[in-house]
Amino acid sequence: MKKRLFTPGPTPVPEHIMLKMAEPIIHHRNPEFQEILTRVNENLKYLFQTTQPVLTLTCSGTGGMEAIFLNLFSPGEKIIVVNGGKFGERWVKLPRVFGIETIEIKNPWGTAPSEEEIVNALKQNPDAKGVCFIHSETSTGTATDIKLLSKVVRENSNAMVVVDGITAIGAHEFRFDEWGIDACVTGSQKGLMIPPGLAFVALSKRAIEATKNSKTPKFYFDLKKALKSFEGNDTPFTPAVSLVIGVDIALQEIRNEGIENVWARHELLANTIRAGVTAIGLKLFSNSPSFAVTPIWLPESVEWKKFNKILKGKYGITVAGGQDDFKDKIFRVSHLGFYDELDMITVIGAIELSLTESGYEFETGSGTKAVQNILSQKK
Amino acid sequence: MKKRLFTPGPTPVPEHIMLKMAEPIIHHRNPEFQEILTRVNENLKYLFQTTQPVLTLTCSGTGGMEAIFLNLFSPGEKIIVVNGGKFGERWVKLPRVFGIETIEIKNPWGTAPSEEEIVNALKQNPDAKGVCFIHSETSTGTATDIKLLSKVVRENSNAMVVVDGITAIGAHEFRFDEWGIDACVTGSQKGLMIPPGLAFVALSKRAIEATKNSKTPKFYFDLKKALKSFEGNDTPFTPAVSLVIGVDIALQEIRNEGIENVWARHELLANTIRAGVTAIGLKLFSNSPSFAVTPIWLPESVEWKKFNKILKGKYGITVAGGQDDFKDKIFRVSHLGFYDELDMITVIGAIELSLTESGYEFETGSGTKAVQNILSQKK
Repeated sequence: MKKRLFTPGPTPVPEHIMLKMAEPIIHHRNPEFQEILTRVNENLKYLFQTTQPVLTLTCSGTGGMEAIFLNLFSPGEKIIVVNGGKFGERWVKLPRVFGIETIEIKNPWGTAPSEEEIVNALKQNPDAKGVCFIHSETSTGTATDIKLLSKVVRENSNAMVVVDGITAIGAHEFRFDEWGIDACVTGSQKGLMIPPGLAFVALSKRAIEATKNSKTPKFYFDLKKALKSFEGNDTPFTPAVSLVIGVDIALQEIRNEGIENVWARHELLANTIRAGVTAIGLKLFSNSPSFAVTPIWLPESVEWKKFNKILKGKYGITVAGGQDDFKDKIFRVSHLGFYDELDMITVIGAIELSLTESGYEFETGSGTKAVQNILSQKK
Repeated sequence: MKKRLFTPGPTPVPEHIMLKMAEPIIHHRNPEFQEILTRVNENLKYLFQTTQPVLTLTCSGTGGMEAIFLNLFSPGEKIIVVNGGKFGERWVKLPRVFGIETIEIKNPWGTAPSEEEIVNALKQNPDAKGVCFIHSETSTGTATDIKLLSKVVRENSNAMVVVDGITAIGAHEFRFDEWGIDACVTGSQKGLMIPPGLAFVALSKRAIEATKNSKTPKFYFDLKKALKSFEGNDTPFTPAVSLVIGVDIALQEIRNEGIENVWARHELLANTIRAGVTAIGLKLFSNSPSFAVTPIWLPESVEWKKFNKILKGKYGITVAGGQDDFKDKIFRVSHLGFYDELDMITVIGAIELSLTESGYEFETGSGTKAVQNILSQKK
């Protein structure tokens, strides 16, 4: 059976990148690797749209976020964290472990924070040193307007703007410098199309200054060390060499496609999925849907386990289920990374077939037709 | 030019493991991956010779050591750390960052700690909560008698025995349970023959108890979370999926070869290298040489840069140079991981040719002959 992955991380890895990573390993302190890391460092700046350093850390995205909290803030300091899902919850908890006070803006799952909520939180907490947003919350497929809210933070405070861009970078327009972001992280297994194991952290001038003053203890995640190594296109500790070799190719391809085109492709693919599932009578979960992953309500008559058994077992398609309160109630289809237009016909086709076989009634082919309509209309 | 890597991490990755890792990526919360992780968890116990949990963390070996310090000890507590090289230096510094007091036993580079030194340190610091050893110090190719010194610690104190086994596991006999070790870490890019990006941490019952009491703040490196996930053959954060798939194969092969045979092979290879370089008149750097990596004094008449340019540029052999005070003075040949007897003839052959071309005079072929003598004598 042919297998196809539609999960929001790991995302599919292009075959030629897999094979490039399968070439004989090289040593990380040798000129061959330094050449690769130099190019990676340069192209990461392009990906984040910044002239500032973007550091490569060997860890998951959570490790990258921990590094930001540990290096920008000190115990006793206060930050505001927007929580509208599984990862928002985590970013509320994580800083507290290190004595950083977190003020929570809680949004119902599937909704994004409003301008007013941010302004109010800043008014009530004029001493907040940072505000943390999630650009695309993976658990709810919900996008936050980072451009707008970063401006709001800048206009109403001196707080630093921290962005979890783990599932957003490469899918959503993102301009680190122009939008005044202070710190942003992404992971390797997302828009960058390679296996998990690396996190990338961009830091503004103000954030770099903050790393010098932060009193939170750290060693592996000490970004002062990483920044120093970055200048020499090196890393303080042995990096995940094969993954860096993979991300080098992925970044070159993103650059060749053009970052604006990559964003536009993700928007188009998200639109086809939304149209496809809506046409067969399903409802979208989020009221501010992401371009990276689309969560969809299962029809009440359809059981998740039965549906997923057909989708995965018979058609080889892996999607993600719902989490926490929405377990067995929603499913999430990813279109983040290495996907094209035809993949969207494929996945909607498989969803149609699996729903039919689960006993759900609708006009057969209406989903794929809706996808086709959008694709044929695009300029 | 055919390239051959003889560095102590990354070490060469078997081609079939590289290609296995290049297969289509799978999702880490799916049954396919759980099956792999279940087998990895079981075989890691075999590798460490323990019935205790061995945790898989996505980070470098340093991250694994940090996890041990953060979870076993608390700020204000005291530990003893043996420092005889670059990594010893690091393990003295790292705990201090987190407020753990480290008492340093300083050994000259190339020497191992004695029983007496450990007994004295424990007498002077009866309140020490742990003693940290490096089984094989990579910077100096020096082995420590962990079996003996662990016993010494156990007999003279209640301190926990922490072992940096990063370059030793798979090369040196190591029996976690039998020797009374409390915590040990290795890295993926060492004896396990896969690319860097994973650390593996074994914990004794006593160490697991200690994780419950430790007050050092941690999140990504919180081993209580990792232990809980381990029970369900899961990980708390997205693991480096492709590397776990690789280590699964490597562990199965180590199990098939038999761990005693793997240790014996490393001892044999180390003996051939020592005999080979000694026969051509070079001197060994360490007085307690490791089975993983052999540091060798360069003849005074030979310039490191010139020698390495020939060895690497003409013969495609990458070895490691000396560090700190021994930069340009020694070179380090690794025989850790995926190496066999014939590789040792190859590397000694290339060293001979490169020394000759660097102007060093000796009886041509005496090195390879010495290697052959050992190999032909083995039972």
